[in-house]
This record gives sequence, C-alpha cells and structure tokens, in this order.
Amino acid sequence: MNKKAIGYEIIARDGEARSGVIKTRRGAVETPVFMPVGTLGTVKGTRFEALESAELDARIILGNTYHLWLRPGEETIRECGGLHRFVGWGRPLLTDSGGFQVWSLGALRKITEEGTEFRSHVDGSARFLSPEVSMQVQAALGSDIVMAFDECAPGDASHEGARESMLLTARWAGRSRLSFDALQKEGLDAGRVGERELPSDSELSGAQALFGIVQGAAHLDLRRESLERTAAIGFDGYAIGGLSVGEEKGVMYRVVEEIAPLMPGDKPRYLMGVGTPEDLVECVARGVDMFDCVLPTRNGRTGQAFTSRGRLNIKNAQWARDRRPLDEQCACSVCRRHSRAYLRHLYLTGEMLASILLTHHNLAFFLDTMRIVRQAIRSGDFTRFRREFLEAVGSGVA
Amino acid sequence: MNKKAIGYEIIARDGEARSGVIKTRRGAVETPVFMPVGTLGTVKGTRFEALESAELDARIILGNTYHLWLRPGEETIRECGGLHRFVGWGRPLLTDSGGFQVWSLGALRKITEEGTEFRSHVDGSARFLSPEVSMQVQAALGSDIVMAFDECAPGDASHEGARESMLLTARWAGRSRLSFDALQKEGLDAGRVGERELPSDSELSGAQALFGIVQGAAHLDLRRESLERTAAIGFDGYAIGGLSVGEEKGVMYRVVEEIAPLMPGDKPRYLMGVGTPEDLVECVARGVDMFDCVLPTRNGRTGQAFTSRGRLNIKNAQWARDRRPLDEQCACSVCRRHSRAYLRHLYLTGEMLASILLTHHNLAFFLDTMRIVRQAIRSGDFTRFRREFLEAVGSGVA
Repeated sequence: MNKKAIGYEIIARDGEARSGVIKTRRGAVETPVFMPVGTLGTVKGTRFEALESAELDARIILGNTYHLWLRPGEETIRECGGLHRFVGWGRPLLTDSGGFQVWSLGALRKITEEGTEFRSHVDGSARFLSPEVSMQVQAALGSDIVMAFDECAPGDASHEGARESMLLTARWAGRSRLSFDALQKEGLDAGRVGERELPSDSELSGAQALFGIVQGAAHLDLRRESLERTAAIGFDGYAIGGLSVGEEKGVMYRVVEEIAPLMPGDKPRYLMGVGTPEDLVECVARGVDMFDCVLPTRNGRTGQAFTSRGRLNIKNAQWARDRRPLDEQCACSVCRRHSRAYLRHLYLTGEMLASILLTHHNLAFFLDTMRIVRQAIRSGDFTRFRREFLEAVGSGVA
Repeated sequence: MNKKAIGYEIIARDGEARSGVIKTRRGAVETPVFMPVGTLGTVKGTRFEALESAELDARIILGNTYHLWLRPGEETIRECGGLHRFVGWGRPLLTDSGGFQVWSLGALRKITEEGTEFRSHVDGSARFLSPEVSMQVQAALGSDIVMAFDECAPGDASHEGARESMLLTARWAGRSRLSFDALQKEGLDAGRVGERELPSDSELSGAQALFGIVQGAAHLDLRRESLERTAAIGFDGYAIGGLSVGEEKGVMYRVVEEIAPLMPGDKPRYLMGVGTPEDLVECVARGVDMFDCVLPTRNGRTGQAFTSRGRLNIKNAQWARDRRPLDEQCACSVCRRHSRAYLRHLYLTGEMLASILLTHHNLAFFLDTMRIVRQAIRSGDFTRFRREFLEAVGSGVA
C-alpha cells in the first residue's frame, strides 16, 4: 500500500503554463486555481452556498492558522469536528502555517531558532508559534493541505539577511515534516477521511497533505538553494513564499520565472498571497498552478470592482445614475441584476449589501478568469488569451 | 372600465383572523403577510435572490420614502426607472410616506398645517415634507402600494393632543388622496405597469394603490373617529399607525382588537411597524392582514435570533462549543448548515457573515411563521396553532 495524501495530474501544457487536476480527499481541484481566502473561517461577506454555486464554484478555499488559533482556538474547532465541520464547508481547505502572519506583526514578535514569540493582536497575550505548534494546530483544523512553518524575509532583504532567514525556513521545514508525520501517525488530524468514505479505487490515503515553502527574498541564488533544500526534504507540493510583500512587481515576476520551472514538475506549484488578475495570468504563464489572495474580498469591501477592463471605483460620482452593470462582459448574478448607480448608492449609504455584492462580483471575476485560463491552456490558446486579457484589463473602465 | 389598483380576496376566516390574497400589479401576496423592511432599497444584509428563494419567498417588501428621498434622491431613482428597476426587485413594493420617520426626528422637525419642516439626519440640510411632496416622491419611486402622509402622536399623548394630531392626519389624508390621484392622471408613477404587461383578463389597472392610515394614539374613540374620517375619503387599504411607539403592549392589542374589526372588511388591513412573532400572531387573531418590522433584520445584526422557543443571544458563552443549530425546529439554510458555535465565533470576531446568517434565519422564522399562520387559518386550526405557538415561544431556548 503506497497511497498518497493528494494526487496531481497534468492534462495540458502551453509553454510553461500547465493545467491539471489536484485530487484531494475532499474532491478534485482543477488547476490553475484561485483560492478565495477565508481568514477566520469565512470568505468575508460570502455565504458558502454562493461559493458552491455553479456561478462561483470555488473548489478550494484557504483558512488562516494564526487567526483561527487565536479565535476561536484550536480546542473549540477540534471539539466541533475540525474546520470543515465547524464552518460547514465540505470541499477542500488549505491552511497556511501562521508564519507569514506572525512575521507581519513586526515589532510585536521575536524570532528564535525554536520559533516565534509574539503578542496576540487580539488581546496582547504572549504566544509562541513554532513548526511543531503550527503542525498541531493545522492537525486540529484538519485542513486538506497543510503548509510548512516558514520565516519570511522583507522584499528588500540583503543577501546575508535573506540567506540566514532562508536557512531557518529550511530547518523549520524539516521540523514541520517530522512533526506533521508524527501527528498523522497519532491520528490527530481532525479532518481525516476514512477509507470507507473514499472511492474504493482511490489512490488517496485520506490523510492531510503537506506543502513546503521556498524563500530567499529577491536573490535568485538563494531561491534556488531554498528550493533544493525544500525538495530534498520532500513534500506533496511546493510553494513560493515571501513575494507580494512590498517588492517591485518585476522582482516577483523574475523570481517566479526563475523558480517555478525548477520546482518538481509532478507536484502542484503554489504562489502564496498573489495577486491581481494580471499577476495570476502572468504567473500561470511562468508555470504556477495555485494562487490565493485577499484582493477580491478586501477590495470589494472598500468599493473596488475588478472588471475585464480594469478596476472600477464604485464611489466615483460618474456612476451616480449609470444603469450599466459593473462589467458589461460579466455574466455573474450581480452584473445580471444590479447597476453601478445602485451599487454606488449602497456603498455611499454604508449598506452591507455593497460589500456583499462587490465581493461576489470580484470573486466571480477571479474565478471565471481562472476558468478561462484553464480552457485556454487546454485548447493551446493561452498565448493569445494572455495578450488579449492584459490588453483589455489595461484599457480602462469607461 | 372600472379597474382597480389592487384586488383583495378573502379565502378563509377563523374568528377575526382572515387569510386571503392581495392581487397587485406585480403579483399576488398571500395574507396574513410579513413584509421585510428595505429601508434604503435593501433588506439589510440580504440578497434579493435569497428573498425570492423558495425558502424565504418574500412576496412584498417595504421601502422608506424618507430615506430614499434623502439618498439617492427621487431624481436618481426616477431616472433609473423607479425603485423596482433601481434595486433590481420585480415583486411588489410598499413605501411608507415618511411621516413616521420625520416625526421620529423629534426636536429636528417642526410640524405645521402645510407639512413638516425638518433637518436631514444625513447632512443637516433644511427639508420640507408634506402630503403633496410625499406623493410626488412615492410616484417617482413607483411603489405598488403608497401610504398616505400622516402625523404620528406619542403613545402617551393626551386626548386633546392626540385629537389635534388625528385631525391633521385626516386633513393630510384628503390632500394625499387628491395629490395622488392627480399624479396618477399625469402619468408620473415610475412603476406603472402597462396594460399589455398585465394578464388580458386582469381586473387591475396597472396604477399604484393608496392606503390610508388610522391614528389616535391610545384613545379608542379617537381611533374610531380617525377610521371613519379615513374610510370616508376612500382608500385601497387601511393601516393602523402610531402603535409600537413606546406604549404598553396591552394598549397596542386593545387598539387593534377594537379597530381592526371595524376597518372595511373587503380591503387589506395593515398594522404598521409591528412586531415580534408573538405580536404578529396576536394581531392576526384580531383581524390584521399585513405587517412590517425591522426586528428580524435589526436584531439579526445585533446577534439576536428568533426561534420557535423564543430569543437566543448568540453572544452568550454557553454556545461556544454548541454544535446545534440556532433552532432545532427550523429548516432554513442557516440552521441546516451552521452551528451556534460557528455563528457565535463569527459574531465575536466581527465578521459580516454573522449578520448575514442571523438576518437570514430571522427572516425565515418570521416568514415561515406567517406561512403556518395562513395554513392554520385556512384549515380552521388557528386557535390551536396560536396557543401552541405562544406556549413554545415563551418556553425559552435551552
């Protein structure tokens, strides 16, 4: 018996771009895929029914270990049967490790070999996160894909600083792997899928999968070294972390272009925390399979819509009596029903429905873009799609 | 040709309780009916798709003339084709007159024979609302049921003060009627339904309907006089206003018990701004057909759920790890999917989804209660239903 936590099958390639299927214990995820972010166990402003609808059809969403660990806490979630049961979502879940969040706390945290001491942003209490703690919490969450606990370096980190950080990430990756394997053996994964719940011919074990993370800031040699060290440990998938943290856009594209094609070709490649619709298309072209980002939800709440012709600020006076939808090319339920004038009115009067509808449209735009990306790769038409998409998005909303 | 704006057919009676169908130009509304409140053109926290779903199936919702007049303004709504088109709702809409809202402004308003001067709560600008202005705005909104412009008296108003106020309401009712009829003649109803859009055998004219409002505070003789004066003018339906404004619960029930049976039996009877689930059932028993109230939506946003065993405060620590739904008797999509523990977590972390889900459940509870009320009246079983419902609601959530 040599069953795996996840499977990955590539169906089509177009240049470096790949399209395939990740098989998880909770269903299949077609790639390239965008994962909506459900920080605290909710994709903000969105009902799970909408995520499951044919319109959005989000196949996998993300949860943040740091946030869920602080509230409601791992014990509550474990007692409620793991994160899937706690929130009422039966499709795949990926959880990050908390490494990026505690790194973002800045002055509030102190990093040692052992792990990261920090103060909770909720109540100021002293907390300690390490590879072992992160693996324990992610086991209690029972997510389908677990991320190794890593350390992020600033986008402009010196070679020396970035190397030190990258080596720490590599050591933490080893500890994450050991701790994760022990927890699986002890049966502490709250999201475990029993053999009888999987198809009888399934190649899957029902266990959690573990992804490693490549760091190294903007230094390509460190990125390559990080990838080698991470791959040597062996993971079910590989992520590029530490991008989209304030570096210039060109740096991100260069790192992805250099590193993605070097990542193990038979495993999913995940670019963490990225990005705009343009970023998604550009990084698919460089060989990335998975993305997550708060942009569609966060910007939806602040009144920004992503459209096929770029961004639209719903606050602008020019939309006051505009009966057109956010995006005339969009077939989502918001664009089919509501005008810019109405959405602007909702936003200006502080109505929750503004956030709900803009978030929905933005998610539809991101998820639909990825659906078209997959089709384009599978039909060998990705190069043309990429050119036309970027041209349209750059043309501006009228 | 003697076509009416709305039709009302009573199908069954049980004591004073009635069940029937209001036929409007935008579809049928079965009574007794609860109308969710869509103050600013949105039932707060709720997508129109949810209101239309088989689960909620809200047949009519309410809009507030005062709020929509201030924002986005009647001109914007008229230019966008009326309130239905502006918000994207094709079912019936009732608008209030703004009388109650400006009355609620207290010190910010000055009432004269001509109308009410007040300062906008939005920007402090001086505004003037009168029967004529209210009718103009409601014509621009194009709602299917328009309310006459009335003056509300405090719940504890003296006989003299209440009579003066009631007589002013009666004079304003006459002016509302005249102004309304002129506007219909001038074709200024933005929601007009053309003859070709109505069924060929329709008894309806496609015009707006106008309801009169009975005032008189807690004084039964004034209430009777108000009803006589209002009915003498002639309206498509009649409302009881000025209740649920701080008076004791017994006062409200006594006024309704006295007045509802005296209201024209062949027209819908509408109790404005009421109330709790218990109030709905008690006032149906006293002969009321229509209700509206912000309780399910407002209390949803502040963490209170209405259930078959009374109210549940989602903030309470006792639900922290409770995997049961809000209401074990409830079949709504929130209760089918989410636990008290999860909803409490969402509420405590300030997640919008808490408001969305609690509002949805509360609306489902109110609308479902009315569905059962209708069935009970039609099957002659209302007395037993009323007793058992009130007993259960009073028993407390465990």
